[in-house]
Amino acid sequence: MQAITFHGVHDFRYGQTKEPALEADSDVIVGVTQAAICGSDLHLWHGSLPAAETGFVVGHEAVGVVEEVGSGVHTVAKGDRVFVSCTLGCGTCVSCRRGLYSGCRVTTAGGTRSNIMGFSPAFPGVQAQRVRVPFADANVFRLPDGVSDEQSLFLTDILPTAEMVVQFAEVKPGDRVVIFGCGPVGSLAQRCAQVYGAARVIAVDLEDSRLQRAKELGCDVINPEKENLVERVAELTGGEGADSAIEAVGRPELIGQASMLVRPGGIIAVAGVIVAPVELPWALFLMRTLSLRAGLVNPQNHVGPLLSLIESGRLDPTEIITHRMPLSEGIAGYEMFAERRAGVLKVVLET
Amino acid sequence: MQAITFHGVHDFRYGQTKEPALEADSDVIVGVTQAAICGSDLHLWHGSLPAAETGFVVGHEAVGVVEEVGSGVHTVAKGDRVFVSCTLGCGTCVSCRRGLYSGCRVTTAGGTRSNIMGFSPAFPGVQAQRVRVPFADANVFRLPDGVSDEQSLFLTDILPTAEMVVQFAEVKPGDRVVIFGCGPVGSLAQRCAQVYGAARVIAVDLEDSRLQRAKELGCDVINPEKENLVERVAELTGGEGADSAIEAVGRPELIGQASMLVRPGGIIAVAGVIVAPVELPWALFLMRTLSLRAGLVNPQNHVGPLLSLIESGRLDPTEIITHRMPLSEGIAGYEMFAERRAGVLKVVLET
Amino acid sequence: MQAITFHGVHDFRYGQTKEPALEADSDVIVGVTQAAICGSDLHLWHGSLPAAETGFVVGHEAVGVVEEVGSGVHTVAKGDRVFVSCTLGCGTCVSCRRGLYSGCRVTTAGGTRSNIMGFSPAFPGVQAQRVRVPFADANVFRLPDGVSDEQSLFLTDILPTAEMVVQFAEVKPGDRVVIFGCGPVGSLAQRCAQVYGAARVIAVDLEDSRLQRAKELGCDVINPEKENLVERVAELTGGEGADSAIEAVGRPELIGQASMLVRPGGIIAVAGVIVAPVELPWALFLMRTLSLRAGLVNPQNHVGPLLSLIESGRLDPTEIITHRMPLSEGIAGYEMFAERRAGVLKVVLET
Amino acid sequence: MQAITFHGVHDFRYGQTKEPALEADSDVIVGVTQAAICGSDLHLWHGSLPAAETGFVVGHEAVGVVEEVGSGVHTVAKGDRVFVSCTLGCGTCVSCRRGLYSGCRVTTAGGTRSNIMGFSPAFPGVQAQRVRVPFADANVFRLPDGVSDEQSLFLTDILPTAEMVVQFAEVKPGDRVVIFGCGPVGSLAQRCAQVYGAARVIAVDLEDSRLQRAKELGCDVINPEKENLVERVAELTGGEGADSAIEAVGRPELIGQASMLVRPGGIIAVAGVIVAPVELPWALFLMRTLSLRAGLVNPQNHVGPLLSLIESGRLDPTEIITHRMPLSEGIAGYEMFAERRAGVLKVVLET
Repeated sequence: MQAITFHGVHDFRYGQTKEPALEADSDVIVGVTQAAICGSDLHLWHGSLPAAETGFVVGHEAVGVVEEVGSGVHTVAKGDRVFVSCTLGCGTCVSCRRGLYSGCRVTTAGGTRSNIMGFSPAFPGVQAQRVRVPFADANVFRLPDGVSDEQSLFLTDILPTAEMVVQFAEVKPGDRVVIFGCGPVGSLAQRCAQVYGAARVIAVDLEDSRLQRAKELGCDVINPEKENLVERVAELTGGEGADSAIEAVGRPELIGQASMLVRPGGIIAVAGVIVAPVELPWALFLMRTLSLRAGLVNPQNHVGPLLSLIESGRLDPTEIITHRMPLSEGIAGYEMFAERRAGVLKVVLET
Repeated sequence: MQAITFHGVHDFRYGQTKEPALEADSDVIVGVTQAAICGSDLHLWHGSLPAAETGFVVGHEAVGVVEEVGSGVHTVAKGDRVFVSCTLGCGTCVSCRRGLYSGCRVTTAGGTRSNIMGFSPAFPGVQAQRVRVPFADANVFRLPDGVSDEQSLFLTDILPTAEMVVQFAEVKPGDRVVIFGCGPVGSLAQRCAQVYGAARVIAVDLEDSRLQRAKELGCDVINPEKENLVERVAELTGGEGADSAIEAVGRPELIGQASMLVRPGGIIAVAGVIVAPVELPWALFLMRTLSLRAGLVNPQNHVGPLLSLIESGRLDPTEIITHRMPLSEGIAGYEMFAERRAGVLKVVLET
Repeated sequence: MQAITFHGVHDFRYGQTKEPALEADSDVIVGVTQAAICGSDLHLWHGSLPAAETGFVVGHEAVGVVEEVGSGVHTVAKGDRVFVSCTLGCGTCVSCRRGLYSGCRVTTAGGTRSNIMGFSPAFPGVQAQRVRVPFADANVFRLPDGVSDEQSLFLTDILPTAEMVVQFAEVKPGDRVVIFGCGPVGSLAQRCAQVYGAARVIAVDLEDSRLQRAKELGCDVINPEKENLVERVAELTGGEGADSAIEAVGRPELIGQASMLVRPGGIIAVAGVIVAPVELPWALFLMRTLSLRAGLVNPQNHVGPLLSLIESGRLDPTEIITHRMPLSEGIAGYEMFAERRAGVLKVVLET
Repeated sequence: MQAITFHGVHDFRYGQTKEPALEADSDVIVGVTQAAICGSDLHLWHGSLPAAETGFVVGHEAVGVVEEVGSGVHTVAKGDRVFVSCTLGCGTCVSCRRGLYSGCRVTTAGGTRSNIMGFSPAFPGVQAQRVRVPFADANVFRLPDGVSDEQSLFLTDILPTAEMVVQFAEVKPGDRVVIFGCGPVGSLAQRCAQVYGAARVIAVDLEDSRLQRAKELGCDVINPEKENLVERVAELTGGEGADSAIEAVGRPELIGQASMLVRPGGIIAVAGVIVAPVELPWALFLMRTLSLRAGLVNPQNHVGPLLSLIESGRLDPTEIITHRMPLSEGIAGYEMFAERRAGVLKVVLET
């Protein structure tokens, strides 16, 4: 089959690779109809998350149709239109039972490897014509008629990530929320914060075109190179400070900045992928009674409510799609996304 | 001063009554600019909540300007634009400290009388030129510039009631919520459920004109005289049943109906004023794991978030105002409201 | 094999019945080592929950050893020591994913039948030498070494029921909780309320011997035939009323009584099996802002914390075992339990 | 009057100082009967929290009797036995209404100074014969008969601090909790975690005598100089890791250590006073989905439940009192406490 595979930093290749086959009775084979490029794929592209091996299929956001079903699978059948969770849990270990599929004892091999698809040969990715999904009952979800393939593509990772970070921030009706970053995750976090009832979503970015888009979608906006961030947040919150701040960029220093923007009792939630140590201005955390949260998404926990919101029209994540192209042109898609060319926010690859 | 006073069933009168004066150092005198007629005022009008005495001022929804301030009041000053909570708590008893001002040990005299304004001489009402408010630090709230008198009028009772019942129903993003009744409370409960992230708000009423209005404001609608209620709710919820149901009419039998509309684990929240015993189909409560909640509003707990939502433009409760008239014509307002004439939803009285 | 089977009201029989066999790849066969008689078995015994068919095995509380395993089962293996949830969920439908196994769309056939074992031929019971358990990954749990068979027996139904009702009552540290009934569920609800941090657990019963036992285990006690219930609860709660009340008897009128014992904002949780309609004193629910909850247990949700508490020695549910006998003498056990002879609280049947 | 006053690092003095007098109508004067030395007083003693001025009374843990009452005070009267919150809120600003008295806009002068008593002349302390308490309705609490002065002394700061950090850690029944430090706060956090239902409280300290005491009070114990901390926690938690970890020492590096002891989804709560920047191993926070919380206590929020628990005998904080002495010998008390001599945990000063 055709797929995009990893061969090194800045060296992804489109071409022929081995067909997947059922390996366990809990597996399914999904024929991919659409896959998307995620910001975290770029960590592999740029080498900031190094891979020890090569040749495996990349990507972890996909929808498609079930083609083969293991004998132990109960929830989907051949021909079902489905999406695949980016994170693979076994569904029955102590961590999965808590809803922490990202910490699955089985698929992470006791915490020694990632269980996100497309980062190693252990769990090859989805930017391919077909993909084997282990523990299908936990990781593959049938789609209702009212939700399109393209909408569902966002349920695999990015929209649950956005909702997760809004939940980490405990956003509730009437809140004022600062969101750093108007990229794909930041933009969807704006939408989720609005759905969660935020009175003000305050978008912070250095690019005015991104801020303009946020403003049109109902956000207050701040470009910290042009306005004083602390003062402007104070103004927009009646002098109180924000109820919470969300980091959706991936820069450690923004966590410290966030602690100056939130009110006493405020919450800082981090969606950005940061792997370096982070230094916190602890006196602020102590004196202002702050909470800080980060984590990996468990798309499995977000299926029902997000499908309801999409199906009823309250949320349409396809708004951030800027580019669609065939899988065969995916390498060009990676290059454009890596270089943030052409106003790119989200690239969808069609098989 | 001029006021509307109680003299018996269907016998409210507009005319001269005694000026209020400071009685304790925690009192303020508020000069009323606007007062509204509430559905619960009609219980006094119709005699379903009987009053033992006569001659007292009625009404419990008012905004105005502070005219006199007791020496023990810290939070408002003469000249402040304020709204007054319909329910009067002392602010410091064990019940008030829990946020249950409606169960204040002091103002309810240990649970032996109502502490809502305008139902007895103990706490005369606000449909008057001036009103004394006891325990002002707990019950009177200064208004920010961005919020109008008319908007604030809704913070005194009806909008917090609507938010309370949505909170009782634990409405969260993605939920499907059935709301019985498209009257003033039901309509604002629709708005609050939307702010709380409901994927579908399903409005139920017998009047098509009210349903039409709900539909225009984003609700799904059902007229149970024209459609099968249970089947239609099942359809709108993918066969699952609603996550919660809200009774905003005041008819006991709707509580039983609600228990057939919600899914296992669902919640039934009651905003309607029901004083007769209620018979529940308990087997459903047991087999479907249901919760049931009712209660009196504590506007004090809703001030911050609702002001933020109004100030940012996400919520505008004035949408339900259908009539504005001078206080001197208030008796006509009561008659129209009691008889549900002229599409009346909310009547505002101006002094 | 030998088992206890249903043949009519007051007509259970011990004798030979057909061996169970694997029917689906998600089944296991468990060799039962211990089974217990539950209060809800008595509804079948007395005919208050009627059964349309006869000849099926009764009982729904069992521990044992896995003897056969379907090919699609991932969580247990032959030889594992396990307990079986009384309620059988499929584990993957929308209701099970919410943790509402009692409302499983699959095993309840869309809400048209009970999915508790031992009440019909659909899901034969566990008072037998062997039992087939469908959807084993959702319903069968491996036991850690530090927890005995007898302790685990309580995890199948009664201890999760007790914890559920304490969770319904939202018992938190410092609370004062009234519990009606010192029977098996009431007694374990006392223990759970203590573990949840209640400052006072107030046990109410008509039998002084049961109250004496409760007192020795740290409860305050009231016999309402000898003391004024309302006054005594007021005394024990500093005049405030209880934070919550738990009905663990099964008498509808106690729900109304409970509403007079709790403080404004209080919660009433019902563990007793009541199937008749219940009449509520609604004015109290409205004026005092009360919540009411009932439901069927989902033992699956309680496994982890209860095992930890038992394993560390903080909770030992075997305290309520009053009688142990071989399965072959189970009919005598039923008779004794039904007639509440010999101080019986819990009867364990050994195979 | 006689008091202990601040004159510089290691220079506290006992002697004559000016009597306090009512300054505002919301003040009371409390005649102190008992005061305690708190670990945070040592920050002043050692100079790690510097003071700009000298001569003020120190200390912030006191009980006593109301001697004078301002005209605007409603909740206490002359002669009432009371305790005083260490943190002084106005009770009515936006922060106090949220329960964040430590972030009171009024008493912190908009966040520019501490509102804990005894750290500056703005709010002189309680280690004196008498103390003026501003905003008495928010900060002074009447004691019920069943609770002694000595027990109440712990409600002023240290016991609410212990409960706060247990709440930050979201300890719930069945949890396994690691607590770093067996000093006064750590010891009471052990007790609170037990009351909150923890299955295992794992106490970590370097002093075996402190660990021995913890063990006798029901904790598992680890001396990390003698055992491998990570391995031992894994053993005690069935290989899962702790549900939460509490830092009650005040050493920044323990926060990083804690992140290795908790399970995916775990929580780290910090009670120790740390003012230096803290470096976090962020990859762990990201990969394991961790939460981190710190903050200053608001004793006002803890009054009701803690009084109930003390009154019913479930909690007795006086267990940690190791020394009692007259106020006049308080300087010796400070020296002993600062040097951790004589097994000192808590020193009570009597006037």
